[in-house]
Amino acid sequence: MSTEENIAKTIDGKTIAANIRTGIKEDVDKLVASGKRAPGIVVILVGDRQDSHTYVRNKKKTATEMGFVSIDCILPGNTSQEEVIEIVRKYNQMPEIDGILVQLPLPSHINEETVLNEIDITKDVDGFHPINIGKLAMRGRVPLFEPCTPKGCIELLLQSGVTIEGKNAVVLGRSNIVGLPVAMLLMNRNATVTICHSKTANLKEVVAQADILVAAIGVAKFVKKDWVKKGAVVIDVGMNTDENNKLCGDVDFNEVKHVASQITPVPGGVGPMTIAMLLKNTLISAMRRQGVEKL
Amino acid sequence: MSTEENIAKTIDGKTIAANIRTGIKEDVDKLVASGKRAPGIVVILVGDRQDSHTYVRNKKKTATEMGFVSIDCILPGNTSQEEVIEIVRKYNQMPEIDGILVQLPLPSHINEETVLNEIDITKDVDGFHPINIGKLAMRGRVPLFEPCTPKGCIELLLQSGVTIEGKNAVVLGRSNIVGLPVAMLLMNRNATVTICHSKTANLKEVVAQADILVAAIGVAKFVKKDWVKKGAVVIDVGMNTDENNKLCGDVDFNEVKHVASQITPVPGGVGPMTIAMLLKNTLISAMRRQGVEKL
Repeated sequence: MSTEENIAKTIDGKTIAANIRTGIKEDVDKLVASGKRAPGIVVILVGDRQDSHTYVRNKKKTATEMGFVSIDCILPGNTSQEEVIEIVRKYNQMPEIDGILVQLPLPSHINEETVLNEIDITKDVDGFHPINIGKLAMRGRVPLFEPCTPKGCIELLLQSGVTIEGKNAVVLGRSNIVGLPVAMLLMNRNATVTICHSKTANLKEVVAQADILVAAIGVAKFVKKDWVKKGAVVIDVGMNTDENNKLCGDVDFNEVKHVASQITPVPGGVGPMTIAMLLKNTLISAMRRQGVEKL
Repeated sequence: MSTEENIAKTIDGKTIAANIRTGIKEDVDKLVASGKRAPGIVVILVGDRQDSHTYVRNKKKTATEMGFVSIDCILPGNTSQEEVIEIVRKYNQMPEIDGILVQLPLPSHINEETVLNEIDITKDVDGFHPINIGKLAMRGRVPLFEPCTPKGCIELLLQSGVTIEGKNAVVLGRSNIVGLPVAMLLMNRNATVTICHSKTANLKEVVAQADILVAAIGVAKFVKKDWVKKGAVVIDVGMNTDENNKLCGDVDFNEVKHVASQITPVPGGVGPMTIAMLLKNTLISAMRRQGVEKL
């Protein structure tokens, strides 16, 4: 096939996530049929950011469809840090809650680190507690939970038949939520990982080394065709709006699809995986906390 | 200067560490003169590994010279994990101990992770508690202590006038003790970091991208002249013996000095920095635990 004709395979995150959700639903049914509790998750949301509310609503809808007990704890924007911490502690104590998720970002008067550190590590289904991140980073240590979006990226690679071991993986962005943990997950699977960021001097050349490229910087259509190695697999975590106010990723999909071998679209790529992985983590927690090893 | 004539500047870790020790000694004197306790450190050593005993002896000698209270807790190789944990807990409770160091490796019947997790995080002067590693990895979080050898590598770069920000840094090796934390420290200082390991497919090409190369794989003279970019700064953490039973690093010093701009020797490079950084961490802990902000 000549270069002109190459069109990358689109990695269909929507379908992959739907299949994962079906599996979770079946597992929840088995768990309940065996006489155990359904998994319970609480989402704590402070303030009235529209995007957060939409996201939390979607989480609840999906969780309920999967048979989870899903509680939304919606708090006004002027809730004090102490009150949020007290609520976290209350859910730490509730045996029927397996996962506690504090929706980020929090209002600026609340210290994110202080609040997240309060979450019982056995209920930290987002995987953002420093102990979980520390274990994720260290060789021979296993975190209780892997962060959801990064875990979703790895799942997309695996389900698309991509070998990770020995590959050059380049991660664009080093956020605590995506860039950093996805780099660690790739390293744990024996990729040679390079982490790029705003201070990277020769970004284009570094990206050109990637067999696997994960873009998570939050700049619309930032990655162009001539940056990407022919045959690379591209995972686009970006969620931006383009000049026509349409949702788009960090990668210029219509350009890059001509050089990549596989690529995730936005929407319909990584996006649907996050909630699926969150529910998977919560199911794992519910099984663990009820002493169920397998279903 | 032509390529033939280039000889890298040797980074003199011995002198740099000696200067740091002088500074620590002065600070300890000031601390004591202000009516506070001298820093207290305990090293727990299980078994009779000769290299560990030599290392612990050196630590004690240096710590005592610096005016520290230094306790060695030498335990027989058949000490149970429970007994080691009890001893750790005892020193956790002792207010006059600012740093607890468990010498690794532990005998195989003792779980390293379980024991290290017992160390009070405010006394974890080695910086290996998962919370410290997690905070080291995360953006905007500050660990209580940075691991000693990695911190020593950064100190050597800084004191040699090397700019880290924006440089391509390649770390050879991903151990919990050196490779991984040094990669994080380099990333925190805005280098573009690539971590290589035994599964890296095209090691030579990756190493050739490095402006800063940190070698920590434990293979004698592994890195050769033609791997290294002209002008690169090379930090050699290796401690191996060569064919003549002489101490040597992971880098073929006599070859690589002809292409690097600066290079650490073995011995006399990174080695002397580790104990210096350990004592610095213990001094920081002693100040923090006695409410002393500066001297």
